[in-house]
Amino acid sequence: MHELTRELFVKNDSKIVMLVADGLGGLPLEPGGLTELETARTPNLDALAKRGVQGGSIPVAPGITPGSGPGHLGLFGYDPLKYQIGRGALEATGIGFELGPNDVACRGNYCTLDAQGNISDRRAGRIPSEESAPLAAVLRNVKVPGVEVFVEPVKEHRFVAVFRGPGLGGHVHDTDPQAVGVPPLDPAAADPASQKTADVAREFVAQARKLLADQPKANGLTLRGFSPRPSLPSYEEVYGLRAAAIAVYPMYKGLARLVGMDLAGKAQTLGEQLDVLAEKWNDYDFFFIHFKYTDSTGEDGAFQAKVARIEELDQVIPRVTALDPSVLIVTGDHSTPSYLKSHSWHPVPTLLVSNCCRYDGLEAFGERQSLRGGLGQFEAKHLMTLALANAGRLGKFGA
Amino acid sequence: MHELTRELFVKNDSKIVMLVADGLGGLPLEPGGLTELETARTPNLDALAKRGVQGGSIPVAPGITPGSGPGHLGLFGYDPLKYQIGRGALEATGIGFELGPNDVACRGNYCTLDAQGNISDRRAGRIPSEESAPLAAVLRNVKVPGVEVFVEPVKEHRFVAVFRGPGLGGHVHDTDPQAVGVPPLDPAAADPASQKTADVAREFVAQARKLLADQPKANGLTLRGFSPRPSLPSYEEVYGLRAAAIAVYPMYKGLARLVGMDLAGKAQTLGEQLDVLAEKWNDYDFFFIHFKYTDSTGEDGAFQAKVARIEELDQVIPRVTALDPSVLIVTGDHSTPSYLKSHSWHPVPTLLVSNCCRYDGLEAFGERQSLRGGLGQFEAKHLMTLALANAGRLGKFGA
Repeated sequence: MHELTRELFVKNDSKIVMLVADGLGGLPLEPGGLTELETARTPNLDALAKRGVQGGSIPVAPGITPGSGPGHLGLFGYDPLKYQIGRGALEATGIGFELGPNDVACRGNYCTLDAQGNISDRRAGRIPSEESAPLAAVLRNVKVPGVEVFVEPVKEHRFVAVFRGPGLGGHVHDTDPQAVGVPPLDPAAADPASQKTADVAREFVAQARKLLADQPKANGLTLRGFSPRPSLPSYEEVYGLRAAAIAVYPMYKGLARLVGMDLAGKAQTLGEQLDVLAEKWNDYDFFFIHFKYTDSTGEDGAFQAKVARIEELDQVIPRVTALDPSVLIVTGDHSTPSYLKSHSWHPVPTLLVSNCCRYDGLEAFGERQSLRGGLGQFEAKHLMTLALANAGRLGKFGA
Repeated sequence: MHELTRELFVKNDSKIVMLVADGLGGLPLEPGGLTELETARTPNLDALAKRGVQGGSIPVAPGITPGSGPGHLGLFGYDPLKYQIGRGALEATGIGFELGPNDVACRGNYCTLDAQGNISDRRAGRIPSEESAPLAAVLRNVKVPGVEVFVEPVKEHRFVAVFRGPGLGGHVHDTDPQAVGVPPLDPAAADPASQKTADVAREFVAQARKLLADQPKANGLTLRGFSPRPSLPSYEEVYGLRAAAIAVYPMYKGLARLVGMDLAGKAQTLGEQLDVLAEKWNDYDFFFIHFKYTDSTGEDGAFQAKVARIEELDQVIPRVTALDPSVLIVTGDHSTPSYLKSHSWHPVPTLLVSNCCRYDGLEAFGERQSLRGGLGQFEAKHLMTLALANAGRLGKFGA
């Protein structure tokens, strides 16, 4: 698809806003009931529905439940089956560590080793974050010649290690043996180009063991999910768009950075995100606004709280439309039904408004309405092409 | 898609039932009329529709009419354009001959040869099955050193030959010259690995000619569609499912065997099939139930008879739901409109019921309802992924 958009994109003064309500789609609590979105009082979204076009966005493929990574890559127009982000790289992205082209990232677990060096607890008793965070600072004392080493704390027994240097291939096997009573595995290259990385990792582990030797629980570590920086073409390259991300959480900022968006502002609330949108309006062509709480309330199984978060989102819609975007999209990266307390595969209600969308006569925004909408059911990866088209930013294919 | 399902499947105690009404989809006899399914009185299917989700299953691709092979492979989640079953292998499968890994199957036609050895009738006057069946027994007397030879009668002038032995490649050109007045072609290998197969086929033909020399019409033969056993990964491998097929006809049992399903019971009627379902309920995770007569009545152009068969199917639905399957799917491998007296390309009304399907508010099961259903129109190959998702048997893709 990007082969087409690269060839066809044109530039103009249009503005595109993609408002992503994470985990927007839902389910009723019982057959015949209403979903969270259908329950919510959303006069502003419903007003948009009356002049827009709706559809159901399939994040990856029918039946496939995506994580945040594939969910957002799809919305950004990057085929999530083609662009798979390694676990280490996603973990680094998720804590806001910006990977460079010479970086290899991996996920680390602190573990407990017995006197023989065998693992007695693969998660070091799930030590609390307050105890594990200072250990990252300790591990930063590891020195490997010719390579920069970064260690960042994650939650509980987890951390991220990044090795930066020339000639570091990204494919090293996990050192977690997935068992207790045996020692951690030696880092082993999965291809010849990653031999140096395996050597660096071995040296890192050896020094780390000495630095952690006196720890009561976290006296060892395992490394998993070695992966290079994902190589994604940028929004500028494939769409000709200067793009800004207005997000609060590191994961979504990181995903936006992977496709070359600028991070705009330092908003901590939805209101502040809208402030940033207005401030930066003249500086960018495309704005990705991420709203987290429709997902987290869904994950909690808190139906009414999710309804309230949707209503909160509805309330700021007039602040977006006041800027008169050429194209306004409201969607989600996946469904997170409170009923399931988890991400799900169900299509995500998606609304697109422009002065040349073919409006479909629907009166409200919701799961059942979106079934009858003019966008039909479509794979998320096509949404950006629709956005560009509605913004007058795509030329004709063929003569 | 199987790369994903292999990676993501999880096991649990759920039960999935896929009830395939062969050729289910139909057409009205005149514009504005009702289809067979819409005409049928189906209170039980309609009750399922009220708590399920509908859609239109596209067997292969828009406009493509499938045979039974691709139709079922699609429903089983095997891309029918990727997994093409050779003609000989399908013919063997269709008569219940279970191919082994060292087998090459081909379709045979008896033909009539004149005194010069030229073909005067490519189908031996379409001799009736009663006359041709004993010829298969005659041909079993062919002896080829190091190779087992199987010959099985099919309808009229047709038979199946299977050569079993080590080193038999599956690619030999047809010997039917598609013309009269010329002799049958010599079996010729289409690749070096199939030279031995071509030699075996040549010896088979030479001996067969002697054995058939006194036949008034069927004194010669041609061989077509040489093909090895199709290599399909099993349901256990790609879905983690213990699967059972409850079918009456050899073709459907054979297709189920190709994807590693067990053949359960010896049912001859729909009622007996439901008996088997109940008996085997605890032994399997997935049940494929095949109902033939919606197709055969469609092929006959017998609109009312097809309506009656659909009503017969509706009557057993309570026996399925009494078992409380986690996921119940009612679909067909393709449409067989009585109006066309043949298979067709039209999307097949498909109904999925689970406790986490996003029900779509429809009140009945039928072609027009399915157009407005929550599954939209989808390629049949995605149905198994949806089934697994609804059964809680698929993990999350990406973090």
